[in-house]
Amino acid sequence: MIVCEHASNHFPPAFGTLGLDAETRKAHIAWDPGALGLARGLSKALDAPLVSAGISRLVYDLNRPPHAPGAMAAKSEVFEVPGNVGLSPADRQRRTELIYLPFHAALHAEIARLLAKGRPPVIVTVHSFTPVYYGQHREVELGIIHDADPTFAEAVLAEAQSLTGLTCRLNEPYSAADGVTHTLRLQATPYGLHHVMLELRNDLLADDLAIASMADGLAPVLTAALTRIGTT
Amino acid sequence: MIVCEHASNHFPPAFGTLGLDAETRKAHIAWDPGALGLARGLSKALDAPLVSAGISRLVYDLNRPPHAPGAMAAKSEVFEVPGNVGLSPADRQRRTELIYLPFHAALHAEIARLLAKGRPPVIVTVHSFTPVYYGQHREVELGIIHDADPTFAEAVLAEAQSLTGLTCRLNEPYSAADGVTHTLRLQATPYGLHHVMLELRNDLLADDLAIASMADGLAPVLTAALTRIGTT
Repeated sequence: MIVCEHASNHFPPAFGTLGLDAETRKAHIAWDPGALGLARGLSKALDAPLVSAGISRLVYDLNRPPHAPGAMAAKSEVFEVPGNVGLSPADRQRRTELIYLPFHAALHAEIARLLAKGRPPVIVTVHSFTPVYYGQHREVELGIIHDADPTFAEAVLAEAQSLTGLTCRLNEPYSAADGVTHTLRLQATPYGLHHVMLELRNDLLADDLAIASMADGLAPVLTAALTRIGTT
Repeated sequence: MIVCEHASNHFPPAFGTLGLDAETRKAHIAWDPGALGLARGLSKALDAPLVSAGISRLVYDLNRPPHAPGAMAAKSEVFEVPGNVGLSPADRQRRTELIYLPFHAALHAEIARLLAKGRPPVIVTVHSFTPVYYGQHREVELGIIHDADPTFAEAVLAEAQSLTGLTCRLNEPYSAADGVTHTLRLQATPYGLHHVMLELRNDLLADDLAIASMADGLAPVLTAALTRIGTT
């Protein structure tokens, strides 16, 4: 199963623009550019269901629990988000109920149904990251991140190093210790499901052709990694 | 927050009696006798919300994931459960959708709302166990069980030993390794919430007076344990 929490930079009218101009609402702080296209390409190539979000992560970051400051970030990297400053408990509860709960309930239901049918899914979350962060250039091109169980992530790393020319790193540029594996921790780890979070540097997903090419390159990596751990 | 997954020995008409006679449907394999009364007593004494189930654990054991054989057990201890033999994937999916998903979605929603409001709950699941298991008498009277984080369970153990005359044991008669902490793993661990599973030997919950007395004895234990870990 493919999951894409930061697929969209849509700001629903009910929440306004959060005080951000149009340019900022298109920047990487609002979503993961290219991630949805890559997730769709992998979903199609692997014949795997895709669950993706339709709302900017600045309204609610679906990969964060409701009590994390980053769930409705008042500051993201160097950008202030005026509409997220001084949110009341009622504001936070409203966004949790309207955005976080339905997304994770739908994902949970889909996973539970597959478990009941004896077909435990492997969970792959698809993200992208900015090549320059706080002024520093990042060398890593493909980050491969896991929650509690590293088995599948280690298999993906081995196959990605073997089958692609990408600079691959385990648990970079982020890791579970940074709180970035909430979806995996909530949806995969309690069921002992194999899982991985893929983080692609977004300059490698700059247009539709690049995205399609990356999906074509990574689908065989995931297939080989499933074979490596004995899951097909 | 108090949770009681095995509160009821109700067999809804939609699922029939599973081929069990009336006596077996009242036995400990169908529910945790006394657990709901104790959970209600603790909920009242501590002014904590209670989430409890209304269906026998033989129809669906809410403390088990959909792929666990014990979720819809074909055999429980020495008892055969004819209505659970040879369930089809569709049968398992139906019970998962009708019983498991709504219970855990409701619990998840309640926890997420409290998190959004900045009031992370402590999760206490309340169970009872039979004094004789496969012919063996069990010495332990109060089992105190945790999932990943032992902090709150250890505090409850220390206070129970100090404040009650019960024979208390950590991670007996079951532990997370036996797969009995599914609710905690699904609802508490992903959020880093303090948690404990209480297992009372059910001969100590034989009637309403005994149950009320046990609730009176354990409420101060939980209060003192909350103070011990710095949560009130």
